[in-house]
Amino acid sequence: MTTVSKDARDLHLAGLTQALTPGALLTEPEGVAAYRFDYTADAGAGMPLAVVRAASAADVQATVRWAAQHGVPVVPRGAGSGLSGGSNAVDGCLVLSLERMRAVEVDTATRTVTVQPGALNVEVKQAAAEHGLWYPPDPSSFEICSIGGNVATNAGGLCCVKYGVTTDYVLGLDVVLADGTLVRLGGQRVKDSAGLSLVKLFVGSEGTLGVVTRAILRLVPAQAPPATLVATFDDVADAARVVVAIGATLRASMMELMDQASINAVEDHRSMGLDRTAGALLIAQSDAPGAARGEEVAEMERLCSAGGARECFTTTDAAESELFVAARRAAIIAIERRGAIMLEDVGVPVPRLPDLLTGIAEIARIRGVEIPVVAHAGDGNTHPIVVYPPGDADAKERAALAFSEVMSLAIALGGTITGEHGVGRLKRAALPEQLGPDVMALTHRIKNALDPLDILNPGAGF
Amino acid sequence: MTTVSKDARDLHLAGLTQALTPGALLTEPEGVAAYRFDYTADAGAGMPLAVVRAASAADVQATVRWAAQHGVPVVPRGAGSGLSGGSNAVDGCLVLSLERMRAVEVDTATRTVTVQPGALNVEVKQAAAEHGLWYPPDPSSFEICSIGGNVATNAGGLCCVKYGVTTDYVLGLDVVLADGTLVRLGGQRVKDSAGLSLVKLFVGSEGTLGVVTRAILRLVPAQAPPATLVATFDDVADAARVVVAIGATLRASMMELMDQASINAVEDHRSMGLDRTAGALLIAQSDAPGAARGEEVAEMERLCSAGGARECFTTTDAAESELFVAARRAAIIAIERRGAIMLEDVGVPVPRLPDLLTGIAEIARIRGVEIPVVAHAGDGNTHPIVVYPPGDADAKERAALAFSEVMSLAIALGGTITGEHGVGRLKRAALPEQLGPDVMALTHRIKNALDPLDILNPGAGF
Repeated sequence: MTTVSKDARDLHLAGLTQALTPGALLTEPEGVAAYRFDYTADAGAGMPLAVVRAASAADVQATVRWAAQHGVPVVPRGAGSGLSGGSNAVDGCLVLSLERMRAVEVDTATRTVTVQPGALNVEVKQAAAEHGLWYPPDPSSFEICSIGGNVATNAGGLCCVKYGVTTDYVLGLDVVLADGTLVRLGGQRVKDSAGLSLVKLFVGSEGTLGVVTRAILRLVPAQAPPATLVATFDDVADAARVVVAIGATLRASMMELMDQASINAVEDHRSMGLDRTAGALLIAQSDAPGAARGEEVAEMERLCSAGGARECFTTTDAAESELFVAARRAAIIAIERRGAIMLEDVGVPVPRLPDLLTGIAEIARIRGVEIPVVAHAGDGNTHPIVVYPPGDADAKERAALAFSEVMSLAIALGGTITGEHGVGRLKRAALPEQLGPDVMALTHRIKNALDPLDILNPGAGF
Repeated sequence: MTTVSKDARDLHLAGLTQALTPGALLTEPEGVAAYRFDYTADAGAGMPLAVVRAASAADVQATVRWAAQHGVPVVPRGAGSGLSGGSNAVDGCLVLSLERMRAVEVDTATRTVTVQPGALNVEVKQAAAEHGLWYPPDPSSFEICSIGGNVATNAGGLCCVKYGVTTDYVLGLDVVLADGTLVRLGGQRVKDSAGLSLVKLFVGSEGTLGVVTRAILRLVPAQAPPATLVATFDDVADAARVVVAIGATLRASMMELMDQASINAVEDHRSMGLDRTAGALLIAQSDAPGAARGEEVAEMERLCSAGGARECFTTTDAAESELFVAARRAAIIAIERRGAIMLEDVGVPVPRLPDLLTGIAEIARIRGVEIPVVAHAGDGNTHPIVVYPPGDADAKERAALAFSEVMSLAIALGGTITGEHGVGRLKRAALPEQLGPDVMALTHRIKNALDPLDILNPGAGF
């Protein structure tokens, strides 16, 4: 960790201070330290030189320009809720926090919302709902994560199986490039084939190509109240086959799966009357309009029964639906109570789910750790959670091995090391195994073209 | 136009001939000339040195490698149905035709189809349909356009308003880069946040960054038979307001608009009993499951009536629905019969449609040309068609001015010069006005990083 005397640092930063909105620069050590980590709390995180709490796009431009001039890395940061260390600080960097830029403006005529990056996902959802509209992307952390972070990681959630991920809703972006230029990409138009797909390139780029200062997001009509199916299966392979069958028949608006270990974790935490002996619990929803949602869950139930479900239950009652979804939402909290955790985000083609889950169970057995799994099963994106006793160095090492082996397994099954959290700093070592040397080289050519000084979030993303 | 002696050319090409599948290289002048133009038949198209009719990805790699070695431009070409001159030849180029690479393989378990670029859109739709699945993107040219071209232009169609455009269905691409390297991007997994969004960058890049040799496309369950609404309005402003109101209420699976000039063009061509005095005709569909489609068209009818529709008609009968859609499909053919045409593809935010249509009528009046408009109104993408007497040089000049002015108008309204056809060579001059110098510079930085010799489709796209 680099240490600098306070005076030397303040002198160094004087030019930046002058270029920013008064009060935007934070240099007081305790305040700065609070911006070292996102949710991964990785012990490898560095100590920032200072934190810029930008109040405007102009602040972002001034920060990036100063950083480029002085060769100082910039780590952009939204709400700090990332799960891959993508906004963990590096030594001597400027953390560029967008938390104060949180304006949200709905335009009902174009059915879009113009959002500053620090606005929380939930704030966008609420603003849209006030006009009878809906912003679908729904990471489980939607109440605490920012739109800027959602754009940076191409965040997903539970409704992706029908409604897609963040990139499907981003129509326009303002981006500050590595030399401080602000470019305005896209707009309120829905379709646009003019020029390269630059909006799409910046979505998911984890702050490595530019800093988003404004996003124009597409809204859709409010979601109809869903009907819900819950089914238990003897084993996950049966459940996965049913997920494939449902997906080929209709468009469920949610299709979540819990394995036996996660069912039991929830029951241990707070009994909800789940069947501890079931190999898998499937929770699926339909939000089809009118009577169709009832027809769709009935069809799902038929497919579950035909696919060997042990028990099925369906409801069109909203409160009852919410109870079942609550069990799914409680899973990660329940699992976190079991020890220290490492949260995975691997995805595979849906029919490979049984192979993935069987393989994960085998890794858990060999490494002597628990790995319960909850999954956005409808799109093959899973969250295996490696659990180990906190403070046990040997167990931590075995957990890290398991974490790495689960990623390798997903790659071997034609999958990805991250479906929605991003690579950040935590999964960077595993990326070349997934992409191969030629795609890594292509990635670096684009990075070099856009950020030749490697100022923007160095060490994250790839 | 460059001319070379046959012997000199054959000597020059000997190395390429040896590297390709026997018979892949076409040098016979009449055969080569057939590959000069796409549907724009632009008189400015150059004469190719030769045509490679690739039989495999290896042929594509060999072609690009040879071209890079010899500094020869490569113009990739699918079915040649492009409407912006994106595959018009340049002098001395190799036209790289993908028409022979047309394998289509459906995988029902992952609900994906793996397609070679020369396969027609209709062939993919048919292959999917054999398994009860559906590939949504539906350019009006779906029976004659190739998937490679669809990917290159990020093609749209009529169902985009609910189902999105080509990029929303591309999960993976094999791409041959400018140095001949083949990279494999994405895969059968639905969600993937690992690394940059390279798949998305290549979609819509019009063959300027690489040549697609394989695409993995997402399929969805077969579409339910639609119910249809037809409504007439006194003027397009009323119709556009209703389009906004419907879009805020439910997700129509089609929302097409014809203006008075295009209604009359259809009636002139073949009477379908349309109301020649109506200012606008709206054709909308719902494909919601079960009873909901009837409910949704009833709701659309209510919104039309409330919005001042002159007449409304709804049907859940498939044959009757098809009749109305046929009138819309007939429009471009009917308009083509009126003279020489220049087909626009401009898009604006939906609520700006009235301003766009009023402005277009004014441009038509000033320039003394007809400009009927048919529109994918639900997403603000319109096809104004500039009509002028063939062989009239003065009229052609005025038509070209009008063509350019319509693009400027769309840009001024926050829109785009192309919603789904691509920039190609025809609209290239207008792109800087839309993107501005900074975004153009960013575009060129990416192009230079990926194709430093400017071998791939030079002069197209940007």
